[in-house]
Amino acid sequence: MARALRLAERGAYTARPNPMVGCVIARDGEVVGEGWHQRKGGPHAEVFALQAAGDRARGATAYVSLEPCAHHGSTPPCAEALVAAGVARVVAAMRDPFPSVDGAGFELLKGAGIAVEHGLMEAQARELNRGFLARVERGRPWLRVKLAMSLDGRTAMASGDSKWISGEASRHDVQRWRARSGVLLTGAGTVLADDPQLTVRLEDGSDFLPPLRVVLDPGLATVARGRVREGDAPTLYIHAPDARLPRGLEIDRVAVPVQGTRFDLDAVLRLLAARGINEVQLEAGATLAGAFLDAGLVDELLLYVAPVLLGPRARPLFDGLHIDAMAQRLKMRRIDSTVVGEDLRLLLRPEES
Amino acid sequence: MARALRLAERGAYTARPNPMVGCVIARDGEVVGEGWHQRKGGPHAEVFALQAAGDRARGATAYVSLEPCAHHGSTPPCAEALVAAGVARVVAAMRDPFPSVDGAGFELLKGAGIAVEHGLMEAQARELNRGFLARVERGRPWLRVKLAMSLDGRTAMASGDSKWISGEASRHDVQRWRARSGVLLTGAGTVLADDPQLTVRLEDGSDFLPPLRVVLDPGLATVARGRVREGDAPTLYIHAPDARLPRGLEIDRVAVPVQGTRFDLDAVLRLLAARGINEVQLEAGATLAGAFLDAGLVDELLLYVAPVLLGPRARPLFDGLHIDAMAQRLKMRRIDSTVVGEDLRLLLRPEES
Repeated sequence: MARALRLAERGAYTARPNPMVGCVIARDGEVVGEGWHQRKGGPHAEVFALQAAGDRARGATAYVSLEPCAHHGSTPPCAEALVAAGVARVVAAMRDPFPSVDGAGFELLKGAGIAVEHGLMEAQARELNRGFLARVERGRPWLRVKLAMSLDGRTAMASGDSKWISGEASRHDVQRWRARSGVLLTGAGTVLADDPQLTVRLEDGSDFLPPLRVVLDPGLATVARGRVREGDAPTLYIHAPDARLPRGLEIDRVAVPVQGTRFDLDAVLRLLAARGINEVQLEAGATLAGAFLDAGLVDELLLYVAPVLLGPRARPLFDGLHIDAMAQRLKMRRIDSTVVGEDLRLLLRPEES
Repeated sequence: MARALRLAERGAYTARPNPMVGCVIARDGEVVGEGWHQRKGGPHAEVFALQAAGDRARGATAYVSLEPCAHHGSTPPCAEALVAAGVARVVAAMRDPFPSVDGAGFELLKGAGIAVEHGLMEAQARELNRGFLARVERGRPWLRVKLAMSLDGRTAMASGDSKWISGEASRHDVQRWRARSGVLLTGAGTVLADDPQLTVRLEDGSDFLPPLRVVLDPGLATVARGRVREGDAPTLYIHAPDARLPRGLEIDRVAVPVQGTRFDLDAVLRLLAARGINEVQLEAGATLAGAFLDAGLVDELLLYVAPVLLGPRARPLFDGLHIDAMAQRLKMRRIDSTVVGEDLRLLLRPEES
């Protein structure tokens, strides 16, 4: 199963909106076939693995990181393929909560007399597909907030200048996190201050799907400018219902309700989930990052901590948090800390309350 | 030499104001004696090692982490002892800059026909005795600033409450750093806000010299209260020349010049060096920590980073830094990062400019 999970991860940059899935077929203690899901519309992991196994699949055990599908989507159901190949036993890491599967794959296998087990390395399988699971189970994508900060927790000078807090190694590293995201989300303020392109540049030439770039721009004030519309990726503007589009511009856009001057951020995320987005990476300043955090919508923080001090006049990590007493502090869980060049990369998630 | 340095480190809590020194005597590829300097007034590392070696010291090589002394201090000169024992060769990690040694040990050995080398693992030896070397070479102790901070670089709530940002494991860990410090330095503000005792509590029962507690209290406003006068360690108050001591109180105190409302912090540190202090650990709030940093007097930061967010209203890591542009940022070098319980411990030093 560990091998199946590693195989699954190869689809991190390409499988979406589908989940990442890996499959290993073993007989008599020997691996006879393996596969992973590469791309929506292409074969599922089980099909690759069965092809590789050929006749040796008969009587074998299939280890698969997610319940095999039971429905005719872009491809025929994998559960049927496993039955047809004569597999004796299927071990799945977890049930697939996707409505048209959700146990039906297991039932189909059992009905054909195949022994079915599930739950092996389920925690790791859930971790791998946390974006897909968030979208399917709760109707909101997984929201990762990426910030580059100084040791003293500052993300920019008072002037807005933030070039560059983190080092080159961190700026390369963040590309891999971008590549696994379905959406790179930013705000009008960041477009004006930093003019990021928000595209993916991978050094190793890995295949990836270009993430959708989404700009939260209530008044459509930034649509006429900005590198965020350049490059080889689509761009979507989310605006307030009363915003006016400047004449002669054609952009993809969608209105989302505002409360006062602020977007309904939950509605923003639900809209992205409805479009099949599993993981959203927010790359914005302290205001927008703080607003998502304050709304309880942040699933993980990806912090690049540079060994510099910017002082108390610089901008904070999160603006707009209403914390006045120690008891109100937001507790996080450290998932990972890794040295990246001169910086430290921290991955944290809110502690479940 | 690596072994000699490890032996030397055993004196970290007890050798001061002397440097930590370790000695290994080897003959025919075999260790025949080793020793370390435990305590001022007690035998030096070489004497312990020669005792252990006995007759086997004749013709042997002595590896010593610091130049053997040549002067009659509390004990007879080690260089003479090495000569008397018939050692053939002495390898020292570094020359001792202490004025009454400073090459004289090497000269004495060479004069007696002993082969002398130095410079082996010198960087590590300098690192070990950075406090002693700072005091002797520049007349200021090594200043370590210890701070417990949130992820967003905050050291206390706006109210001053800072109990507890870091976890229990960090609060234990800091005791070892206190034990190696000659002075634990704090300010009147911290005494009023947190009332720390600033004593050492080691879990493993290691022997240590209680560090001198020093309170920077311009007006002697806190002398009547505070746990900083309790416990088994001396306390020294540093005050402005015009401060008045409340009647009936007997305290150790010394006046230091002030510039406006601020102490001359360089004078504070020189005063401590003159009293034989090698390492000072500052445990105070953002104001005093920021003042030392702004004055360019900080040698290292010991940061305990807790996985919590305190928000933008909380107190910053360093107050009073005059940084307005990215080009003015203070660059640090990360020396170490270690997981301590739920926290991360970072050790950083200012990048040499």
